[in-house]
Amino acid sequence: MTPPSALALVPFVSVANMMRLIHAIGPRSAVADMVGYIEEDFRRWKQFDKTPRVAAHSEEGVIELMPTANDELYGFKYVNGHPANMKRGYQTVTAFGVLSKVATGYPVLLTEMTLLTALRTAATSAMAAKYLAPEGATVMAMIGNGAQCEFQALAMAEICGIKTVRLYDIDPSATEKSATNLQGQGLDVISCATPEEAIAGAQIITTCTADKRNATVLTDNMVGAGVHINAIGGDCPGKTELHPDILHRSDIFVEFPDQTWIEGEIQVLDRDHPITELWRVISGEKSGRENANQITLFDSVGFAMEDFSALRYIRDQLDKHPYFDELDMLADPDEPRDLFGMLQRSSAA
Amino acid sequence: MTPPSALALVPFVSVANMMRLIHAIGPRSAVADMVGYIEEDFRRWKQFDKTPRVAAHSEEGVIELMPTANDELYGFKYVNGHPANMKRGYQTVTAFGVLSKVATGYPVLLTEMTLLTALRTAATSAMAAKYLAPEGATVMAMIGNGAQCEFQALAMAEICGIKTVRLYDIDPSATEKSATNLQGQGLDVISCATPEEAIAGAQIITTCTADKRNATVLTDNMVGAGVHINAIGGDCPGKTELHPDILHRSDIFVEFPDQTWIEGEIQVLDRDHPITELWRVISGEKSGRENANQITLFDSVGFAMEDFSALRYIRDQLDKHPYFDELDMLADPDEPRDLFGMLQRSSAA
Repeated sequence: MTPPSALALVPFVSVANMMRLIHAIGPRSAVADMVGYIEEDFRRWKQFDKTPRVAAHSEEGVIELMPTANDELYGFKYVNGHPANMKRGYQTVTAFGVLSKVATGYPVLLTEMTLLTALRTAATSAMAAKYLAPEGATVMAMIGNGAQCEFQALAMAEICGIKTVRLYDIDPSATEKSATNLQGQGLDVISCATPEEAIAGAQIITTCTADKRNATVLTDNMVGAGVHINAIGGDCPGKTELHPDILHRSDIFVEFPDQTWIEGEIQVLDRDHPITELWRVISGEKSGRENANQITLFDSVGFAMEDFSALRYIRDQLDKHPYFDELDMLADPDEPRDLFGMLQRSSAA
Repeated sequence: MTPPSALALVPFVSVANMMRLIHAIGPRSAVADMVGYIEEDFRRWKQFDKTPRVAAHSEEGVIELMPTANDELYGFKYVNGHPANMKRGYQTVTAFGVLSKVATGYPVLLTEMTLLTALRTAATSAMAAKYLAPEGATVMAMIGNGAQCEFQALAMAEICGIKTVRLYDIDPSATEKSATNLQGQGLDVISCATPEEAIAGAQIITTCTADKRNATVLTDNMVGAGVHINAIGGDCPGKTELHPDILHRSDIFVEFPDQTWIEGEIQVLDRDHPITELWRVISGEKSGRENANQITLFDSVGFAMEDFSALRYIRDQLDKHPYFDELDMLADPDEPRDLFGMLQRSSAA
């Protein structure tokens, strides 16, 4: 059989190759680079086709496609969310993604995105905190010590100068796992027995719990003036983490309002409640934190453009770090109309 | 590095493996099997989540995601359409697809779909013709001799007993290509110089041209009583192949009306014009062809459920024909919450 032409081959980054790539770059450098890519895309927000994700809900969970595009590139992520998976030895969330050229429609990257999403979520949180956290913040409370926890800690250390991370999880073994993993990363890591203990002295409070219902991870009296809340866990209808009173005392920043009104903490608010789009802050059109006493809240649900930025970043790395395979994924007959002839000749060969 | 667990591996059918698989089964048998899968899914139409495709349009073309699901399986196809690609040595249309389990959200198949779409489109046409073509039809006219042409001819021969194919294309070299490819397939193949010559004596007229505008491949006086028109080429807004007068004389059958009203031949009709959903014919709820003089028209635009059936068919073949690779596409830490630990340990290994 004639080998496929180069046009027909799509670079594929497996999980193993993604880990090699992250180590080759360094996890903290990778996050820092990714913040640059996400900021670049948030600054040119208006150039993107934006659409809420396309979700297929079932009793067991959800499968979503998250597409977005600018004039040059098109990207989408496939991601599932299945809370009962963990009991069966499967991941709750797995993901993969594709980046394509708009001009030809040809994919130029297929990659695992479970690890990549962990990095881009942490990078997005750190990017928001850069504009919203109080000046000189050095302590972060981390409520919820699941898969995202360590990535958040590293990103906040790298981008915002966080020196101390105070961990709390309803399951102490999760806290222990995160504390062990964060050893030797240049951070003071303090395991706490209660959420109240975790937030003591923290200028940044990150909530990232997995409960699939309206929970109250933070109550109103726990949040004092001058903190930045990085709320990641409330990310689908019926799933929130903060007491509504906190929302009323905070200045709220969001990614894509059409999606956040449905999936974020603000789903419990009236639709005329003031919110600020983060891209307006990053492009300099609106201000982020204005004073030391303000409570800022980044109501993060994860947006397709962040995946787009992450895909774009990985694609750019493949010239320097050849950690990919090439997949023969696109049929490429010599004469485009001769698909059947290609099939016939493959039999003869 | 520890090898990934079986859960993390996704079977991948490359273009080369798809060709091996089709030859192992036999192209005509593969089409016949696929008709069975598509019929099975059309019969249980109401069990599916149906949504019009999600399209990203640009000046150069379109990139689409076509998802659908039933209670058990979720599938989507990525497909592009870029008319200018051919000049650059790229394919106008390429595609790949994914099938997943609804219960876990885990992909169970990633496959090329350019060849597979050619097969499923031909299988869908033949399935419709089985219910709509006049009894004893033996001659098909094939207007437009591009990539789909030979697949249509074989499917109509296998499913409907067509013995003679009369070819016409505005480009004689396309006709020559198809005629050469169809040698030795047990069909009388007649190359024609005009569309009028091609339709002489044909009981089935298939139109499959690539022009991206409202064209008139068939005029009203060309279509006599008692024929079945299999209209494949009119498949996006502004792209039709038939003179509107033909539509008014035909009984029209469609896949998914929400999509066909936008993309099919019927886009030029008033929305109250009667049409019949093909699934109602296949499930026995409505009749197909009722008499010998009727003109039936299958206004085919291609629907996600046909891709779902094709994905399901290929997935079922992999037990018998192991023409696939396994991709390490899903991150699978031993402890689901320990994604960061998995990354760290990969560095040590």
